[in-house]
Amino acid sequence: MPEDNEIKRLLLEATENRNAEEFHRLAEQLHYADLADCYEDLSEEDRDFFTETLGAEAFADVMAELPESLIEETIERFDQDEQREMLDQMSDDDRVDMLQDVSDDTRRRLLDLVEPDDIEITKSLLKYDEDTAGGRMTTHFGRVRVGMNVKQALDSLRAKHEETESLARIYVVDSKGRLVGLLRFRDLAFNTWDTPIEDIVRPYEHCILATADQEEAAQMFSKYDLIVLPVVDEYDRLLGIITHDDALEIIEEESTEDMERMAGFSGDVSEETYLNTRTLTHFKRRFPWLFGLAIMAIASGIVMLSFESVLNKLFILSLFLPMVVAAGGNTGGQASTMVIRAMALGELEPGTTMRVALKELRLGLLLGSLLGIGMALITVFVVPMFYDGMPESIGFTKFAIAIAFALITQITTSSLVGSLLPIGARAAKIDPAVVAAPAITTIVDVTGMVIYFLIAKSILGL
Amino acid sequence: MPEDNEIKRLLLEATENRNAEEFHRLAEQLHYADLADCYEDLSEEDRDFFTETLGAEAFADVMAELPESLIEETIERFDQDEQREMLDQMSDDDRVDMLQDVSDDTRRRLLDLVEPDDIEITKSLLKYDEDTAGGRMTTHFGRVRVGMNVKQALDSLRAKHEETESLARIYVVDSKGRLVGLLRFRDLAFNTWDTPIEDIVRPYEHCILATADQEEAAQMFSKYDLIVLPVVDEYDRLLGIITHDDALEIIEEESTEDMERMAGFSGDVSEETYLNTRTLTHFKRRFPWLFGLAIMAIASGIVMLSFESVLNKLFILSLFLPMVVAAGGNTGGQASTMVIRAMALGELEPGTTMRVALKELRLGLLLGSLLGIGMALITVFVVPMFYDGMPESIGFTKFAIAIAFALITQITTSSLVGSLLPIGARAAKIDPAVVAAPAITTIVDVTGMVIYFLIAKSILGL
Repeated sequence: MPEDNEIKRLLLEATENRNAEEFHRLAEQLHYADLADCYEDLSEEDRDFFTETLGAEAFADVMAELPESLIEETIERFDQDEQREMLDQMSDDDRVDMLQDVSDDTRRRLLDLVEPDDIEITKSLLKYDEDTAGGRMTTHFGRVRVGMNVKQALDSLRAKHEETESLARIYVVDSKGRLVGLLRFRDLAFNTWDTPIEDIVRPYEHCILATADQEEAAQMFSKYDLIVLPVVDEYDRLLGIITHDDALEIIEEESTEDMERMAGFSGDVSEETYLNTRTLTHFKRRFPWLFGLAIMAIASGIVMLSFESVLNKLFILSLFLPMVVAAGGNTGGQASTMVIRAMALGELEPGTTMRVALKELRLGLLLGSLLGIGMALITVFVVPMFYDGMPESIGFTKFAIAIAFALITQITTSSLVGSLLPIGARAAKIDPAVVAAPAITTIVDVTGMVIYFLIAKSILGL
Repeated sequence: MPEDNEIKRLLLEATENRNAEEFHRLAEQLHYADLADCYEDLSEEDRDFFTETLGAEAFADVMAELPESLIEETIERFDQDEQREMLDQMSDDDRVDMLQDVSDDTRRRLLDLVEPDDIEITKSLLKYDEDTAGGRMTTHFGRVRVGMNVKQALDSLRAKHEETESLARIYVVDSKGRLVGLLRFRDLAFNTWDTPIEDIVRPYEHCILATADQEEAAQMFSKYDLIVLPVVDEYDRLLGIITHDDALEIIEEESTEDMERMAGFSGDVSEETYLNTRTLTHFKRRFPWLFGLAIMAIASGIVMLSFESVLNKLFILSLFLPMVVAAGGNTGGQASTMVIRAMALGELEPGTTMRVALKELRLGLLLGSLLGIGMALITVFVVPMFYDGMPESIGFTKFAIAIAFALITQITTSSLVGSLLPIGARAAKIDPAVVAAPAITTIVDVTGMVIYFLIAKSILGL
């Protein structure tokens, strides 16, 4: 969208120049997601002009697209009447999302401003955690009762369609509000007006409990190619729907979260872009693991220190030390990524642990053997060209055998650690991604040192 | 879906027992995605029973859900008439996907079996690469001409609705097939029959060129909360639509691909589950980087070897060597993950390189300083309790200063390398994820060794 980028640039210019007329002309051409992008990039004073010029009503849509960290300060830019107008303008789920992002005080104050019509549903939606199906759902959807005919159904949908988010699926409920089935809009359009809904209702195939994790909902969308997923309570009463765009958002969020965890970030994923996130925020998310891992890495140093005599007797051991250690880290990282992603995509049921272990054992032996042979050949044929300090009592062949054995042991161990640690974490109800790459690398660094020196010591008799 | 899992288990049992009646009863209750799951888990002979019992027509939907690697062998289980029936049964885009997954010979043979009605569209869709917008689109969508009225539009949609994949948006084209705008189904349902389409057509906000990358399409879905994205050629002629479920699939695929690349996998993402992928396939995807990185890691060994005299003079240096090296790897991994994810989500425009570099420079200095201070304190207050070999001419304080400086330098360098290397890769048209974590770790391992020994040498006068 190069055009949109150009309009965005002009809008930022109009904001800087305080040109309200030009601002309105440009803002009309932009999607609210683009307007939110622009707003994020502005300074404090420019944001004042932006909110004032756009107005509370139009800003309601932009609000829903802003990162969590900007919500509170942005809502404070509006006076009470404007806040009331904005709250009225927002869809139920956007309003609840916003209320979940502000402080308790602000939330109480804002709740007093919500229109009487909306207050009950707002309060009941606030009960559900943001990351559950109930927290994600919208309550504006097409719903008809099973006793109606096509004409009655169309009339009832028409009366409310202005505020209905999706009519892709129209849900049929009984007199107690329990989910009975669904219709596609075309079923209404292509049948005569006196057809009873009962005759054309389709069975529903999937629904989810309001208290279920949002990730479960997203997995159902992806597996069954859903467009809408109905959300019910424990009595099968239809509470709302999750739409395809929510699913997309959940999947992007969860992937980002997993990647960041795997790279050793703590805390929540920043909703702001990389560049807009403050350095201090980045710092706070990176430092804890970095520090923890550094402390753990001292263990490797202690191992190295304690094998001083071995290293002193045969300093050429240091040529392959970093390689053996790193190969373990890389293998462990590969194995853990595979397993964590398979779990995230719902591919690994509990109870498959033995099969995973066997697979990684085979793979580790295979990878270790081939790499071991490769490095042994390098030791025997290449190293002697550059290095002439090898003691005759040992010789390059024996040395090569030691390197190969160390590699096989280290890589097999690392495959197992990398694949089983995330599975163990899940069993212990810890997010598997947290124990991933850096933690595993640090662990197999230590084991790698121990393996390397012990094998060298015993095979080479040091 | 515990119920579904139970039905799947029973279906596998019925297959093993060759109980066709039970098989039919159970298969009817399962979604075709679940049937595909079952099929994947079967042995060769069991698969024969499965395909034979389910029949070609019903298997067409299952086929579309199978991983690429199983397509060819599965289609061969059917005779020519069955293949013809299956091809006829499939939607255009599923058929084309399948044809793109088989060998050239098989494709030519299968194309001869495609019904005359479908052959033109099939051949024209085959032109587009699988990972472009054109390769992803379906051609079965609601399309009406701008000159129609509501009744004519409804009649024309009704005539074709059996095979239409989505009527969430109905596209309006002119006499030359160029995209003019769109309708929602409710616009047709809630207006009188004589309303001209021209009066109610809504402007379309987004479309994509058929030759554009699928990732661009997915980003548009996520940014603009789209349900459908129209695909056009360079003359604005409407060719097809991409639907929300394609977008979800693209985003999952691309995230998996990025995670795997970042962990040092080569080749294409396996479409089969982790456990169903053969060990040899895993091996082939893991070994190349593992080997390449091992060769690179020898560079670290060479550095260590060349600083033998420094290490011999002050062996306590080895206590912090692994830590300084690993801290660089962890910082580089964090920085690269941030930057790669930001690029994948379309957050980092080219031209922001300097801002990224400055941000990471600040972050690196901050992280390095704090970690440096922490480790210096440990060196001065904790290490002396366990180690009494420190030469008086050096002392713990001077030693601590050297460690701190080495850490600051190593972490700052690694932040920069980790963030700028992926940006450089993108500029050089290489997938940024490929140069990520393991490669960066291996690079900063080497720089870390050099930094550590050089700083120790100069500060401590070794």
